[in-house]
Formats: sequence, C-alpha cells, structure tokens
Amino acid sequence: MRAVILDRPGTQRVGDRPDPTPAAGEVVVRVHACGICGTDLHILDGEFPPTPYPITPGHEFAGEVVEVGTGVSGLSTGDRVAVDPSLFCGRCWQCQRQRGNLCEDWNAVGDTVDGAFAEYVAVPAGNCYRLPDSVDYSAGALVEPVACAVHGLRRLDLELGSSLLVVGAGTMGLLLMQLAHGAGAYEVAMVDQDPSRLTLAAELGAAATATSVEEIVDQHRGGFDYVVEATGVPAAGQAALGGVATGGTFMVFGVAPQDARLQVSPFEVYNREITVVGSMAVLASFAPAVNAVASGVVDAARMVTHVEPLDRFADAIQLTRQRAGLKVQVRPS
Amino acid sequence: MRAVILDRPGTQRVGDRPDPTPAAGEVVVRVHACGICGTDLHILDGEFPPTPYPITPGHEFAGEVVEVGTGVSGLSTGDRVAVDPSLFCGRCWQCQRQRGNLCEDWNAVGDTVDGAFAEYVAVPAGNCYRLPDSVDYSAGALVEPVACAVHGLRRLDLELGSSLLVVGAGTMGLLLMQLAHGAGAYEVAMVDQDPSRLTLAAELGAAATATSVEEIVDQHRGGFDYVVEATGVPAAGQAALGGVATGGTFMVFGVAPQDARLQVSPFEVYNREITVVGSMAVLASFAPAVNAVASGVVDAARMVTHVEPLDRFADAIQLTRQRAGLKVQVRPS
Amino acid sequence: MRAVILDRPGTQRVGDRPDPTPAAGEVVVRVHACGICGTDLHILDGEFPPTPYPITPGHEFAGEVVEVGTGVSGLSTGDRVAVDPSLFCGRCWQCQRQRGNLCEDWNAVGDTVDGAFAEYVAVPAGNCYRLPDSVDYSAGALVEPVACAVHGLRRLDLELGSSLLVVGAGTMGLLLMQLAHGAGAYEVAMVDQDPSRLTLAAELGAAATATSVEEIVDQHRGGFDYVVEATGVPAAGQAALGGVATGGTFMVFGVAPQDARLQVSPFEVYNREITVVGSMAVLASFAPAVNAVASGVVDAARMVTHVEPLDRFADAIQLTRQRAGLKVQVRPS
Amino acid sequence: MRAVILDRPGTQRVGDRPDPTPAAGEVVVRVHACGICGTDLHILDGEFPPTPYPITPGHEFAGEVVEVGTGVSGLSTGDRVAVDPSLFCGRCWQCQRQRGNLCEDWNAVGDTVDGAFAEYVAVPAGNCYRLPDSVDYSAGALVEPVACAVHGLRRLDLELGSSLLVVGAGTMGLLLMQLAHGAGAYEVAMVDQDPSRLTLAAELGAAATATSVEEIVDQHRGGFDYVVEATGVPAAGQAALGGVATGGTFMVFGVAPQDARLQVSPFEVYNREITVVGSMAVLASFAPAVNAVASGVVDAARMVTHVEPLDRFADAIQLTRQRAGLKVQVRPS
Ligand SMILES: NC(=O)c1ccc[n+]([C@@H]2O[C@H](COP(=O)([O-])OP(=O)(O)OC[C@H]3O[C@@H](n4cnc5c(N)ncnc54)[C@H](OP(=O)(O)O)[C@@H]3O)[C@@H](O)[C@H]2O)c1
Ligand SMILES: NC(=O)c1ccc[n+]([C@@H]2O[C@H](COP(=O)([O-])OP(=O)(O)OC[C@H]3O[C@@H](n4cnc5c(N)ncnc54)[C@H](OP(=O)(O)O)[C@@H]3O)[C@@H](O)[C@H]2O)c1
Ligand SMILES: NC(=O)c1ccc[n+]([C@@H]2O[C@H](COP(=O)([O-])OP(=O)(O)OC[C@H]3O[C@@H](n4cnc5c(N)ncnc54)[C@H](OP(=O)(O)O)[C@@H]3O)[C@@H](O)[C@H]2O)c1
Ligand SMILES: NC(=O)c1ccc[n+]([C@@H]2O[C@H](COP(=O)([O-])OP(=O)(O)OC[C@H]3O[C@@H](n4cnc5c(N)ncnc54)[C@H](OP(=O)(O)O)[C@@H]3O)[C@@H](O)[C@H]2O)c1
Ligand SMILES: [Zn+2]
Ligand SMILES: [Zn+2]
Ligand SMILES: [Zn+2]
Ligand SMILES: [Zn+2]
Repeated sequence: MRAVILDRPGTQRVGDRPDPTPAAGEVVVRVHACGICGTDLHILDGEFPPTPYPITPGHEFAGEVVEVGTGVSGLSTGDRVAVDPSLFCGRCWQCQRQRGNLCEDWNAVGDTVDGAFAEYVAVPAGNCYRLPDSVDYSAGALVEPVACAVHGLRRLDLELGSSLLVVGAGTMGLLLMQLAHGAGAYEVAMVDQDPSRLTLAAELGAAATATSVEEIVDQHRGGFDYVVEATGVPAAGQAALGGVATGGTFMVFGVAPQDARLQVSPFEVYNREITVVGSMAVLASFAPAVNAVASGVVDAARMVTHVEPLDRFADAIQLTRQRAGLKVQVRPS
Repeated sequence: MRAVILDRPGTQRVGDRPDPTPAAGEVVVRVHACGICGTDLHILDGEFPPTPYPITPGHEFAGEVVEVGTGVSGLSTGDRVAVDPSLFCGRCWQCQRQRGNLCEDWNAVGDTVDGAFAEYVAVPAGNCYRLPDSVDYSAGALVEPVACAVHGLRRLDLELGSSLLVVGAGTMGLLLMQLAHGAGAYEVAMVDQDPSRLTLAAELGAAATATSVEEIVDQHRGGFDYVVEATGVPAAGQAALGGVATGGTFMVFGVAPQDARLQVSPFEVYNREITVVGSMAVLASFAPAVNAVASGVVDAARMVTHVEPLDRFADAIQLTRQRAGLKVQVRPS
Repeated sequence: MRAVILDRPGTQRVGDRPDPTPAAGEVVVRVHACGICGTDLHILDGEFPPTPYPITPGHEFAGEVVEVGTGVSGLSTGDRVAVDPSLFCGRCWQCQRQRGNLCEDWNAVGDTVDGAFAEYVAVPAGNCYRLPDSVDYSAGALVEPVACAVHGLRRLDLELGSSLLVVGAGTMGLLLMQLAHGAGAYEVAMVDQDPSRLTLAAELGAAATATSVEEIVDQHRGGFDYVVEATGVPAAGQAALGGVATGGTFMVFGVAPQDARLQVSPFEVYNREITVVGSMAVLASFAPAVNAVASGVVDAARMVTHVEPLDRFADAIQLTRQRAGLKVQVRPS
Repeated sequence: MRAVILDRPGTQRVGDRPDPTPAAGEVVVRVHACGICGTDLHILDGEFPPTPYPITPGHEFAGEVVEVGTGVSGLSTGDRVAVDPSLFCGRCWQCQRQRGNLCEDWNAVGDTVDGAFAEYVAVPAGNCYRLPDSVDYSAGALVEPVACAVHGLRRLDLELGSSLLVVGAGTMGLLLMQLAHGAGAYEVAMVDQDPSRLTLAAELGAAATATSVEEIVDQHRGGFDYVVEATGVPAAGQAALGGVATGGTFMVFGVAPQDARLQVSPFEVYNREITVVGSMAVLASFAPAVNAVASGVVDAARMVTHVEPLDRFADAIQLTRQRAGLKVQVRPS
C-alpha cells in the first residue's frame, strides 16, 4: 500500500509499505480521511519524544472496515467507522482507575505505532465507532479532535447557564466553543488575535468576540465562570487566567512548552476559589463525539478547510504550517 | 389596589385590598404578568394544605419595583424584575445544608402569603432578579417555571452527548426538553397523548416524538439515558420508567397524587444500575433561568398562549382548566 | 490439578483437570484462598443463567503468580495478587463509556469461564492487583467483595458528616458499614433480624443497631441521609426505603428476585427529593479495595469465619447454606 | 459587659461596653469560649482591610443563648450553641448561586461587626447550631475552624481510597488531616518543619510524616492524589505543588500574601491533568463540623492547648504570636 513514511526526524516521503493484516481482536480499516494536527508536526520534526522511527503517522481518521481479525464480534467488513487512536495499557495505576488518558505506558495509533496517513491501518476492534450514514468520512475524521474537546468539556463540569470564554479560535477553540454552547454555557465568548477567525466564531455561536482578553473582560464585568486556554501560547494563558470570575474555573487545553510557567496567585486561588484544571486527549469520549458531529452540535464542514490526496502530503503539511485555514485533511483512498 | 381574593376554598373574586408597603429588606413590585399553574388550581379548590385563607394567590410573576424598604441595596424603583417566590426559613436542617427547596418550614409568595394576582405585591429584595431589556414581562413571568426546570436539569446531572426522553409535552415538559437540548442531550425525544403538542415539540427541537413510550422505545433501541416524567399521571410515570436504558436515570418531575405508587424492580435497580431522582421546585435556579429566557435557549413566546387582564381572572382559570393551550397569564397592570 | 467441577446444574465434585496455561497477556495464579458467595450457590443450583457447564466456579480469590504469558509486563512469578474476576468486552456502549460492570457481553472468571476453586487459574494480567506483604491470602480473597462495596460507596457519593443505615449485617452489609464509616458518614447504624450479628456490627463501628428499621428510625428522627439495602429480601428493601430522610438516598445493593417490586411513591420522590440508586459488582474498585483491607478500614480477619481445604468444598458449601458464620473460604493450595 | 475593645489598629484593651440586645431574628449568646486565629492578629494589627474600628473581635465561639429576639423559633434560652460567624448578603450573584462564602458584600461577626471576645454577643438565630451535651464549650468553639476544614474537604471531593498529604501541621493542617482520614483517604501523610508537631500528627492518624515534601515524596513514589497546603507560606506551597501525583489535586488552604505567586507549569496541568483548587472559609459546613467534633472524627481536646480568661486577652494573643501551642482560647464567662 501507499503510505507516508518518516524514516527519521525531519524527513518525510510517500512510499510503499506492506499491507497490514489484523491480529486477533483487530480489524483493518481502509482510510478515507485523516486530519493533520500539531502533534503530527512535532512527530515530523522529531519533537515528540515517544516516537519510534521509521513510522507512518496519522491519528485523526475515519474509514471502512475491510478485514476482520479472529475474536472480533460486532464489526463487519463494510462498516464505516471513526477510530479512537488511544492504546492504553490497561494495567497501570491510571488505567486501573479508568484514567487511561494518563496511562503510564501510553501508546497511540499514528504516534507510537503505524497510523493512518496510509491506505490501510490495523486497529483494535474496540477502538472503532460506527458512523451514521449522514456523517461523511471527512466529518468522521474530525471525531478525534471533537473527542478531545468533549473530554475537555467533561473536565470543566459546566454549571447550567454559566458564561464561558475560549481564548484561541483555532480548530480546537472553535470546537470547544460549539460544544460548550450546546452544553449549558448560555454566554460564550471568544478571543483570538486574528479578526477573521472571530467572524467565523460569531457565525458558529459566539455571543461576543474580541482580539484581547482585557477587552472582552471589560465588556463582561467580573470575568467569566469558565475560561479555556486553547492556544498553547504561555502569554495567552496568563492573560486568559486573568479573565476568570470569582468562583470560576480556568482550563489549560493548549499544549504549552514544558518550561513555560503560569504565575498563579495562591491568595486568589484561596480567597476567590479559582480552580485550575487540565484536559489531556481522549477518555471514553468518542461515542459522544460521534453524536456531536451527527447531531450538528459542531459544524464539521466548516472546520475542514483543506483536503489533499495522499501524494500531496507535503503540501498538506505546508498548509498546516502556514495556518492557511483550520483543519487540513488527507484522503488516502 | 385590585387583587384576586380567595375568601375560602372554592371561591374567587376580584376586589379591593390595601396597597402593600415594604417591610425592612423588602420591595414592592407592580405586577405586569403572572402565570397560572397547577398549584393555583389546587389553592382555588382548597387542595393545597398549607394555604391560609383569605389569600391572594399568584407566584409566577414579573414586574417593576415601585417602592424600596429600608436596608435594601442594589435595587431601585423602576427596576424590571422576575421574583423567586420561595421563602425559606434559613434555620432548619435542610436550609443549613443549602437545600431550602426542602425547607421544613417552607413558605412562598402566592402560596402561603399574598401573591401576585394583584396590582402590587411586597417581596424580599433578595428574591428579585433583574430582567434584561430584551426580556418582556410575559417572558419574565415565565422565569419561575423555567427555574423549576433548571433545578430539574441540575438534578439529572446530564452526561454530555446522552439521549433524553420527556413524557408529557405540557409547559413544563416542553421547557425541560428545550433546556436539556441546550445542556448536552444530543438526542431529545418527547411523548404526549396529544399529537398537536408533539408538532410544537418537534418545532422546538425534539428529534423524535410519539404518542406512547412503548412506540418511541421501539425506535430507540435500549431506551434513553434519561427519562423525565412531566405529566403527574401515575400510569404515564410507570410507562416512562420502562423507557430507561441500562445505567440510566428516571426523574419524577410531575406531581402525582400522594397515594400513587410506582412498581420498581429492585433487581433492575441493582443489575442495570437504574437511578431514580426527583425534582422539587426552585433552588438557586433563578439566575440561570433568566439567562435561559434571555438567550433564547427556551422560546418563551411560544410557551405563553393566553394573556388576560386581572378582571377576567375567572376566564383565565377556565382556559387553564380546559387545557386550551400552554401557559395562561394574567396582566394586572 | 485438583479443582471443583460442576458437570451440570445440581452436581459438584472435586476432580482432576488439566493445568491451565497462560494465553498472551495472561498469567497463571496458584490459588491460596477463594471465598464462597451467593452467586456460587446460584451457579451450583443452575440458577445463574449465563453459566456454561461443565465449569469450575470461584471468583473471590488471591494467590501467587506462577507463570507469565507473552506480552505481560509488570508482573512476575512470585507476585502475590488479588484478582478482579471481571471480563468486560471493551467494545459495547457501556464499556465505551467506562461502565464495564454493565457490559452487554459480560463475562467473569468463575462465573462464565473456569475460576478459582482449583489449584491454578489463568487470568488476564491486567486483572491482577499486587497485595502488600501485610495482607495475607485470606484477606486478599476478601478484596473482591470489598471492591463490590467500594463501588457501592462510590454510587452513594456520600456527603461528609451524613448519617447512614445499612439493612442486613451479613458480610456485605458489614463491609459497606465499615467503608461508609471511613468515608465520611459520621453516624452509621445497622439493622438485622439476628441480634448476634448486631453485636459484631457494634464492635466494628456501628453507632446504633436494631432488629427493625421502624425501631431505628424512631430513635433517629427524620430517617437517614443514606439507607443501603444489603439483604436481597424484598420486604427488607421496602422497610429500608421507609427509613430515608428528606433529600436522602436509598441504595439497592442486595440481589432481589427478578419478579420482586418495591412500592415507590412518586409524590415523595418529587416532594422530598428521594433518590434511588443501585450498585452492581465491581467497577475500577479493586485498587481502593486493596487499600481498604491493607489500611484496616475494613477488618478482614473478622469477616472470614471459616476456612476449608479444597477437598472439603461440599462442607464449605454446607456452612454457607446454613449461614453458619460470615465469609466461608476454600484454600486450594 | 466586659469586652475586648480595639479602638484603632494596633491597640487593644479589655473594657466595658453596653450589653447587646437582640434585633428581630437574633439571639444574644453568653460566650463561654472563643478561639484566636490568624485573622484576629491581622485585625489587631490593622491588616484586615474591611475592619471598622472600634470593634470587638472574636469569631470562633460557643456559648449559651440568654435572650431571644422577636420572630425566632426553634431556639430558647439555655440552648448551648456554636455560632457560624458568616453574614452573607443573600442578594449578590454569589449568594444567588449558593456560594455565600464568596459574597460580594461579605460580613462576619467579629470581623466586621462586634464579636465574641466579650461576655455577650448578638447573632442571627439561623447562625446558631445546637451542641450535643457531650461537646463542651471549648470543643464547641473549635467548630468554626472545623467547619473551614469541612469546606476544604468538600472542595477536594476525595476519591475513596486515595492518598493525601497535608503540608503544615498547625491547627488547620491537623484538622484537615483528621477529617480526610475519616473521609476516605486511606493514606494520609503530613509535613511540617517542626518535628514535635509531627509526633502529634502521627498520634492523630498520619501514616507517614517528614520535615520536607521532597523527603516524603521520595518515600511515596509518584506523589499524592491530593496535596493540601496549610501553611500560608509561599515557599511551602511551591514545594507542596511538587508532591501532586499525575491526575491529582492541589488545594490552597493557607492564606498567602497577596503578592505571592506560584509557578505552575501549564504543560503539566494539561499533560498530567493536575487540578488546583482553593478553599475559602465556611459554606454550609457547620452542621457536619458539629458532628465531626461530637463523633470524635476530630480530637478537639488535643487541638486546644491554652485557655485564658478574658482579662488575660493580651497574654492569649502573646501565646498565639509565639506559636506556643495549637489553638489558644479565651473564656469570657
Ligand atoms: N488538550 C488536548 O487534548 C489537545 C488536543 C488537540 C490540540 N491541543 C492543543 O490545543 C491548542 C490549539 O490547537 P489548534 O489545533 O486549534 O491550533 P491552532 O489552529 O494553531 O489555533 C490556535 C489559535 O490561537 C490563536 N492564538 C495564538 N496566540 C494567541 C494569543 N496570544 N491570543 C489569542 N489567540 C492566540 C492562533 O492565532 P494565530 O493563528 O493568528 O496565531 C490560533 O487561531 C494547541 O496548543 C494544541 O496543541 C490540545
Ligand atoms: N417538579 C416541579 O418543580 C414542578 C413544577 C411545576 C410543575 N410541576 C408538575 O409538572 C407536571 C406538568 O406540568 P404542566 O404545567 O406542564 O402540565 P400540563 O400542561 O397539564 O402538561 C401535562 C402534559 O402531559 C400530558 N399527559 C397526560 N397524561 C399523559 C400520558 N398518560 N401519556 C403522555 N402524556 C400525558 C398532557 O396531555 P393532555 O393535556 O392531553 O392530558 C399534557 O400535555 C404537573 O404534574 C405539574 O404539577 C412540577
Ligand atoms: N451489589 C453487589 O455488587 C453485590 C455483591 C455481593 C453480594 N450482593 C448481594 O448482597 C446481599 C447480601 O450479601 P451477603 O453476602 O452479605 O449475604 P448474607 O450473609 O446472607 O447477609 C444478609 C443479611 O441480611 C439479613 N436479613 C435477611 N432478611 C432480613 C430482614 N428482613 N431484615 C433485616 N435483615 C435481614 C440476614 O439475616 P439472616 O441470616 O438472619 O437471614 C443476613 O444477616 C445479597 O443479596 C447478595 O446477593 C450484592
Ligand atoms: N482556607 C480557610 O478557610 C482558612 C481558615 C483558617 C485558617 N486558614 C489559614 O490556614 C493556614 C494554617 O492555619 P493554622 O491556624 O494551622 O496556622 P499555624 O498554626 O501557624 O500552622 C502553620 C503550620 O505550618 C508550618 N509551616 C510553616 N512554614 C512551613 C514550611 N515551609 N514547610 C512546612 N511547614 C511549614 C508551621 O510551622 P512553624 O510553626 O514551625 O512555622 C505551622 O506548624 C494559615 O495560613 C491560615 O491563615 C485558612
Ligand atoms: Zn495504563
Ligand atoms: Zn428551612
Ligand atoms: Zn462491554
Ligand atoms: Zn452576597
């Protein structure tokens, strides 16, 4: 089959690899769409430490089951599925308490084993989520980022009728905003440096938008019950923290550099009962994510701005690096 | 002032009563709209035991502050407000743990002290919630039932992306459905015996409707994650319970007769981990209810089908008894 | 190896079976202690429908790892372990939302595949929980029932400082009581028909005991914040329900006959916000259960009243049927 | 009556003041014991901004009801009570959502109105919690700090069977530890610079103690599920944060200077899902706190190390400033 191959950090090519065969409990999926995310860039650049090279990346994908391994029930060839790339060990302390996203021996399809920038990929049957007919493969490949955002929403534990600010109107920020809007946040606001993204945010339901946290907090006396940092930029995180209302919650969703530090006032944490939470990847959030896409709570079509064939993987990466749009996807089949 | 007066159970007249004056900590509100609910019918009929006669009923209301008592800050004449009718004792075991809706010495404006089917009513300042200009008094008088529904939603503690069935498409059922839809229930269904109400339910967001629980459960294999009984009819409650999925929750929202009994299988409660919860009135839910109305999460205009002047109170009651529409309101001013 | 063999419902013998070998991801455990519970009696009597015969039962066990299959990390021969018997499918709707105890394709070691009334048993490595040296095998074999009780406590979601009543002072009731006492229930009471069990309950921390719910509720005005039914007897469940305070929670922990029905007043569920929950088996509760045994929060030694060698399995069953004590265990090695 | 009088910041004397009389809804309490806490020192030194001078401080107290105002039911002269000093406005956004401890117009007996370093004090009837006969006044005056710790425990939302570290073995740290131990934390550890306090900690239930966080984390691989900072010292807070396990929670309970800053890694908050929460004063936590004292979950007697008559208030303050023991109390009656 044709697949993206990273022989070592910093290189990439589309070449031939053997077709995968399903081990016991696995299925082989013919990949129809696979999105590119920041982690893929890190893997390309050799900046995602657990990566073993050579590897075929790609972890945001949907496709069709074409082969079924032994011991698999409930899935057949022809089934259209989105795939949870998570491979939890099932034995560590975190897995034993159902927090597999924090697994001490974490693995993932496309990150530590061969992934979906390829015509075919083998995955555990239990990681497959059937797609309704109304959800096309492009929307299906968006389920993984939506599942990250669903997990984030769960970590927030939104109080009905509250206000929420998302800082960073990229794909993730826009997904988080749409989900929050449909999960009981009655006033949802967005901040981004780029005014064009704010127009889209408003069309997708944001009641207020601004190019800085200070500006939007001025309009919204007392700050927001929930503030989500979805840029990964430390300075944006520090500003975002300042927008949290008394009794409110700040969530770190963006991936900041490891040496970044937020300055947090312990007096304010105590006196104003400010809560800080983080959200890491996917945890039992694929099923609701499929529903979010199918029911239109998130507008998948607007999130995917570019689709490229597998052969043009390098161009797809270029578009992503240039921040030319929102989600860029590759269509291997 | 003009006011509805119930001299004793079974009688009603519109007559003159002295204008109220505000005690310390109180304000007087000029009532612009006051809804009729089932409890009002019980009070008229002498079937609401705590009622002292003579009394002026009316507890779902909005109006304008016209007089401010001593010791009140933060409210001024001219302020447009919806009023929480709850009068919790603040001292009992339930109040001490912030469950005032279960207060052992419960009182309420319009139920145990004079209420809002009158030109003016005196209420504690802390019970007033300011209305945005965009919310008219009719919508403002709907805030109380919305606040009941908000409390119900909180009791459900909805998991993001779940399915929910409301049985009973009256005012309360329709409000519950709209709130659930905007609180993370991605598939919302409704059952009512009356097909005309189901048309409205569908227009307001219900994805599926049917005239019986059995029918809708057939369509939705395995039942619903949440089922809300909003009829008060025991047989409907029993049927509704049968629609709960494994691991799901059944909420009793309707007010059934005291001698009714649900047949609940302890084996299923254990084996399928079925949860049963109840929701009683309002608990710190007025502020989000104002937001729900203001943000359009509930469509207040569609809920109010009849508005009558105070002099036609008897006709308004008649319309309510005939179930001629959804919410019937009286406009005393 | 020697093992209990149930050739068909109603028969039992101790005979020879081939030694198990570990499949990939499995280990073989030399069983040192295995408790008998009500489910075992049902399996013996042919009253546990999913059972395939012939089968070797036994699901409450601890032992020593003696062989390690391929692909297993983190476990070695010589490790002393308690074993979670649950075999969840990992693919169904319940598994996908981390409620594997409600798995649609549920299996368990000793219930649907060969279990631990045998010298050796093969189990998935991920189901093994290492025992501290201070926990002997008899206490280790109690971890499974403790894990059921831990799951029950989690379902209750105890409010700090509340009152709790357990009805039924058998092994499970006594475990639930001890755990609740150490989980923030400041007043714990127990009811059982048998006064001798109440003496033990008091020694283990119950502040009040009685032979009927009516009697104890008389002493504790207003009922209890939490009431746990741990008998499986419908009449006891009905009485227990009557002991729930306004705003309180009733938990069905006992396994009642499938055709039993509780009479539940929907008016009280609504008006007094009574909650009903169930607790089914084990869900990610083995690790805290090991800690509960190790830290002495539950007194394992007092729970195990009889230990028999494997050859005397029939006598052990007899002791259990006669309710001669609390937990009866078998020591195959 | 005799009372402590602070005429202005930095001065203190015991003098005569008029006996208080109860307003409507109030009672007068004859104070039998009143503890000194850090806030009292700040009020003495003019460092608690909301204080109006002259004032009589004292907010941790218990006594006997000696006079009952109009409109008070359920309390009589002779009743022995602990008193919640909180005076929430009941009208602000925080009060409306039942977070009165964050009230925008916060007041408290002894902090902003005259308090209990006096023979008598007038308080709202609803703030009084009856003491069982088994709880003496000295223990009764400890209920307020216990209620702060109960609120802290609620904010932690402890998972059953988890591990917890408290940094700072002063009165508050020791109370938090004892409550956590009785609320499902099976492994409780304490750190303090002063080894003598660690001896007491061990006697009161701490399974492990050390004089530095680094040392105790070395013993407890991977850190603790919950870490509570109870010193108010920023450096201790920073060290404490380093002791949180992956997926764990850090609580700021100590009152740090307003200009202190914790350095928090947003990458770790995201990647290891570290949660930071704060706990501020008392929120509906007096009733469980009375139970904690009455049931012996906290050992009140060991917490109170010095008791002085009112006339020796200056000496009592001196003992507190010298950190001579744990809680110092004054006995005005
Ligand atoms: N927690 C998880 O499970 C998870 C999952 C997926 C992704 N992530 C992380 O989430 C973050 C967002 O992902 P994404 O795919 O949405 O990235 P993205 O498309 O790059 O979006 C980030 C957005 O933030 C904006 N931004 C940057 N600096 C800003 C500032 N100082 N103030 C306001 N806005 C600012 C960017 O604007 P410009 O383009 O103009 O700079 C961009 O619109 C990334 O850090 C990613 O690694 C986390
Ligand atoms: N928990 C609370 O805090 C709270 C607050 C307010 C109200 N309530 C209670 O909530 C319930 C609903 O109030 P509402 O104002 O919405 O009343 P409503 O307008 O009378 O609505 C009830 C609806 O249920 C339908 N219904 C009756 N029997 C049914 C059955 N067997 N199957 C299906 N549908 C059936 C009715 O249809 P028909 O009209 O055709 O009979 C009607 O459409 C009442 O019991 C009320 O007392 C509770
Ligand atoms: N939910 C779960 O995950 C789970 C797990 C394990 C077990 N269970 C179930 O939990 C229940 C208890 O198990 P167990 O092993 O503790 O059983 P057990 O030893 O038989 O204990 C039951 C106790 O309840 C007492 N009892 C019976 N009827 C009573 C009544 N009317 N009033 C008061 N007490 C009464 C019994 O007394 P006498 O002996 O005098 O009759 C006995 O002391 C069983 O139904 C079992 O199947 C559930
Ligand atoms: N959140 C709330 O609602 C609330 C309520 C009451 C009190 N508080 C706050 O809680 C904190 C504790 O109160 P408290 O009455 O228990 O005070 P305390 O008696 O002064 O106790 C503080 C303890 O921390 C120790 N400590 C100081 N620096 C340390 C370090 N670097 N490492 C380890 N231990 C250190 C102290 O030891 P040394 O004595 O040797 O210095 C002392 O034993 C204070 O900040 C207080 O203001 C908060
Ligand atoms: Zn793991
Ligand atoms: Zn009350
Ligand atoms: Zn399953
Ligand atoms: Zn307030």
